[in-house]
Amino acid sequence: MNVLLKSVLPIFFGVTLTVLSVTASAFEVLPEVAPAPADNPTTPAKVELGKQLYFDQRLSVNGTVSCNSCHSVMANGTDNRPVSVGVFDKRGGRSAPTVWNAAFLSTQFWDGRAASLEDQAKGPILAGVEMGMPSEAAVVARLKKIPGYVTQFKAVFGGEDSLSYDNVARAIAAFERTLITPNSAVDRHLKGDKSALSAAAKRGMTLMEKVGCTSCHTGPNYSGPGNLPVGQGFFQRFPSFPSKYDKQYDLKADLGRHEVTQAAADKHMWRVPTLRNVALTAPYFHNGSVPTLDEAVRVMAKSQLNKELTNAEVSDIVAFLDGLNGEFPKITMPRLPETPNGTLLEE
Amino acid sequence: MNVLLKSVLPIFFGVTLTVLSVTASAFEVLPEVAPAPADNPTTPAKVELGKQLYFDQRLSVNGTVSCNSCHSVMANGTDNRPVSVGVFDKRGGRSAPTVWNAAFLSTQFWDGRAASLEDQAKGPILAGVEMGMPSEAAVVARLKKIPGYVTQFKAVFGGEDSLSYDNVARAIAAFERTLITPNSAVDRHLKGDKSALSAAAKRGMTLMEKVGCTSCHTGPNYSGPGNLPVGQGFFQRFPSFPSKYDKQYDLKADLGRHEVTQAAADKHMWRVPTLRNVALTAPYFHNGSVPTLDEAVRVMAKSQLNKELTNAEVSDIVAFLDGLNGEFPKITMPRLPETPNGTLLEE
Repeated sequence: MNVLLKSVLPIFFGVTLTVLSVTASAFEVLPEVAPAPADNPTTPAKVELGKQLYFDQRLSVNGTVSCNSCHSVMANGTDNRPVSVGVFDKRGGRSAPTVWNAAFLSTQFWDGRAASLEDQAKGPILAGVEMGMPSEAAVVARLKKIPGYVTQFKAVFGGEDSLSYDNVARAIAAFERTLITPNSAVDRHLKGDKSALSAAAKRGMTLMEKVGCTSCHTGPNYSGPGNLPVGQGFFQRFPSFPSKYDKQYDLKADLGRHEVTQAAADKHMWRVPTLRNVALTAPYFHNGSVPTLDEAVRVMAKSQLNKELTNAEVSDIVAFLDGLNGEFPKITMPRLPETPNGTLLEE
Repeated sequence: MNVLLKSVLPIFFGVTLTVLSVTASAFEVLPEVAPAPADNPTTPAKVELGKQLYFDQRLSVNGTVSCNSCHSVMANGTDNRPVSVGVFDKRGGRSAPTVWNAAFLSTQFWDGRAASLEDQAKGPILAGVEMGMPSEAAVVARLKKIPGYVTQFKAVFGGEDSLSYDNVARAIAAFERTLITPNSAVDRHLKGDKSALSAAAKRGMTLMEKVGCTSCHTGPNYSGPGNLPVGQGFFQRFPSFPSKYDKQYDLKADLGRHEVTQAAADKHMWRVPTLRNVALTAPYFHNGSVPTLDEAVRVMAKSQLNKELTNAEVSDIVAFLDGLNGEFPKITMPRLPETPNGTLLEE
């Protein structure tokens, strides 16, 4: 059917084959470079600065939590907890999504409330249950007391107001755009290495389309069409069909995107999450209530597609999903700039 | 006087010049390799395993705190907080000492209660206010559920019981022995680069001996004689002389080594801390009560040597101490082994 679409639709609708080849294929290869917005080009110095900020606990009010605390770059980009723990042992309301390949999401957060990585980065630093800084101004004021940051912001962004909250977010986003896991077994399979996937994974690949998973988990990040404009999210209602899982995993307590828009149509709407490295990012769903991938596959088939999978089908689909674990690049640790002769954290 | 000692003492006491050149000089160069105990030789695979464990938050009861949370390798080896914050927002009683160059301390912890890095590493994982794991067995049981650790412990340590708590500590200690900051300005000065130190730092160097700082802060780590056997700590009573600082900075509430030995003679005895990178590890003292290095120098001169320094003397000594900031080596981030299809952190 994809082949048919590709060959027929251009004739009927007059759109280009290039666009359609992105939208119509259920299985795509992950690009090795993430596109950057025009006002925030990715440069090595900016990435280095962003990496420092990403790991710097001083971006939290009491110096105990960094971006990396909940989105661990050394692991799978999450904390593998149901919900994250922020400053003062406060708990977040939703499970931390992985930072790996987040550059390929068209919108950020579970509810898509941030259009870009830049917008996303501004949130947790100021969230009371996450990093707890009182204001953008407080973040900037603290960073201005760290000479190594002042120098770098000036070199990277220039201008009178180089150390601004917007530029903090830009630097972090630039670093995050380098967090890409290419060459998964599925990618190698799609590029022609027919020994990359096991027989079970290949059966799972067929099931992904047959069962209907790929109607949402499509595109290079398996999180929706890959050619959506930045900020135009790809959402689905979850759960779509009632089941025992609603109560078992408390799936309906959180209204999802409705909390952002207040629109009735947005109740229980969620951004479709990536399937890349999904086997490594348990527990699952917005509330992290489902501890294993097997069970998550069962819940999704029932709740979204009203299908009950056999154990063999679950096993095959999980084998395919295992094939979406990519190669994590080696990264040098940043050196966090110092405050010689004193500290910014006095309590 | 050092020169005299070096040339005369060998004749009188018949010991080698090599040993004396270590013990008699107040200012020494930092070795670039740390010695390892006979039962825990440093190997690349062990260091890599230890690095993973050091950064792995799963070594804490709820997966939120790693060794690195309070002893940040990307920074100065500490958290720059008065006292650290462990699991469930619990506060430790003492300020986190730096992990950098800890390999050159003859005894570990503020009160010297651990003879080696291996012994030290076993403490915080089980401490309720730090990482909060309930028992050694619980740590081992959790790590055995992580396939990548099982494989590595077997490869590194071999034998039937390769994934043991002792070996967890051995691996972490092996990684810590690589955390060395050579080539500080003082080291370069001692090696003959007479432009390495400013005039102020050179005056500070002279003051260090004249005021008496080097009677304790000696050896390659400026934390006591460099040739003490492992586990034989170098302690001093702090404060030794009463002053306004006792109350101002609450210096006497904690009985120090007495808490370990219960001996009356050990009241307020503390292991002499390193001065390497001291300008980067504020706040100061066992309770982290003094926020700046300037003030810490004043407090030490008064409390230990009963001397009141002029502002110019403080400034010169701080200039010398700045010269003990070393070169921090580039380190590749570890990849923390996964638990595919599930998580070990379900609450």
